[in-house]
Amino acid sequence: MEKKIITISRQFGSGGRTIGREVAEKLGIPFYDKELVDQIALESGFAPKYVEENGEHSPGTSSFSYSFLAGVTPGITTGLSTSDFLWNIQCSVILQLAEKGPCVIVGRNADYILKDREDCLHTFIHADLPFRADRIVRLYGESEKSPETRLHEKDKRRKVNYQHYTGRTWGAAVNYDLTLHSSNLGIEQCADIIVNIVKNSKKEG
Amino acid sequence: MEKKIITISRQFGSGGRTIGREVAEKLGIPFYDKELVDQIALESGFAPKYVEENGEHSPGTSSFSYSFLAGVTPGITTGLSTSDFLWNIQCSVILQLAEKGPCVIVGRNADYILKDREDCLHTFIHADLPFRADRIVRLYGESEKSPETRLHEKDKRRKVNYQHYTGRTWGAAVNYDLTLHSSNLGIEQCADIIVNIVKNSKKEG
Repeated sequence: MEKKIITISRQFGSGGRTIGREVAEKLGIPFYDKELVDQIALESGFAPKYVEENGEHSPGTSSFSYSFLAGVTPGITTGLSTSDFLWNIQCSVILQLAEKGPCVIVGRNADYILKDREDCLHTFIHADLPFRADRIVRLYGESEKSPETRLHEKDKRRKVNYQHYTGRTWGAAVNYDLTLHSSNLGIEQCADIIVNIVKNSKKEG
Repeated sequence: MEKKIITISRQFGSGGRTIGREVAEKLGIPFYDKELVDQIALESGFAPKYVEENGEHSPGTSSFSYSFLAGVTPGITTGLSTSDFLWNIQCSVILQLAEKGPCVIVGRNADYILKDREDCLHTFIHADLPFRADRIVRLYGESEKSPETRLHEKDKRRKVNYQHYTGRTWGAAVNYDLTLHSSNLGIEQCADIIVNIVKNSKKEG
């Protein structure tokens, strides 16, 4: 079965986004990361920044927050919590994008949302703590919290969000076709491994 | 860093052993599976069949069993349970084999035992249930239990054993450099991916 859609789940700072971009460039297919956020924002009525910060995080938004947001955000009249409303839009947007054709999708539990499509290659990228700590400081700058605390908090939120909406364990090998240790294997090699699998799947038809 | 030792952890019936054998053949290095059992048997005084059946299973042997075995098995005078005694020998044999030179080691928590060696590539192989069920019936024959029950029981034992002796979660991506879904990617391609990573690591030196 030809693998047309590549989903990339990743630990924060592991280079998953960079790998995804390289894979998309090498295969000449769209790369959905920021574009995905914008589309979800458009369909939900939330600000892109809100979507970016909450789309993969713990479903902790209270009904109070929902009530508050419901007053200012057109379109939220479903009685769902803001988290659940965002999740529904996220599922819908990711399913639509996959229908449009080959692409690389980073994060947002796309591996689960697209689990019934056989033309997907689901991957998970992780790395050592020092590699990730160094990377987030270089890419996103310093902050009041230590890099280790930032990594721990962000991964924990992604984990809780994944568990809540999918019932699966985040980072369990069985959820993915392929998982890669990017600090041991190298960002470039990780991208090449994924590209080769996709190319081989085309030969098989 | 050149990757000289390849450890292959695997779900029962996923083809991990076959992949390991192919990798060893393609790289022209020793493949330790049965040889490992024989060596552990030799050093422990247990029968190979006992080592094979208990070396990766739940640490459920009671002290009564130990007392019984201690009377008939020379060398067990340490006060350890039979499971712990077997684990110690297993660690020692695997560490020695890795010292001897490049090789492929299947199972027996070798990923954990060799976690401090940087010249190792740690892999985990898993597959869909129908693929594994079909495979164990073809390879090991029918039995009174359904293939699904056999798979479930064997994986559970490996999981409990791994958790008990390593404190880690069996099959969590972060424990491995690479995990592969063999029924989606194909046995042959899984072997090729591993071989290529090892060959690339040699180029880097």
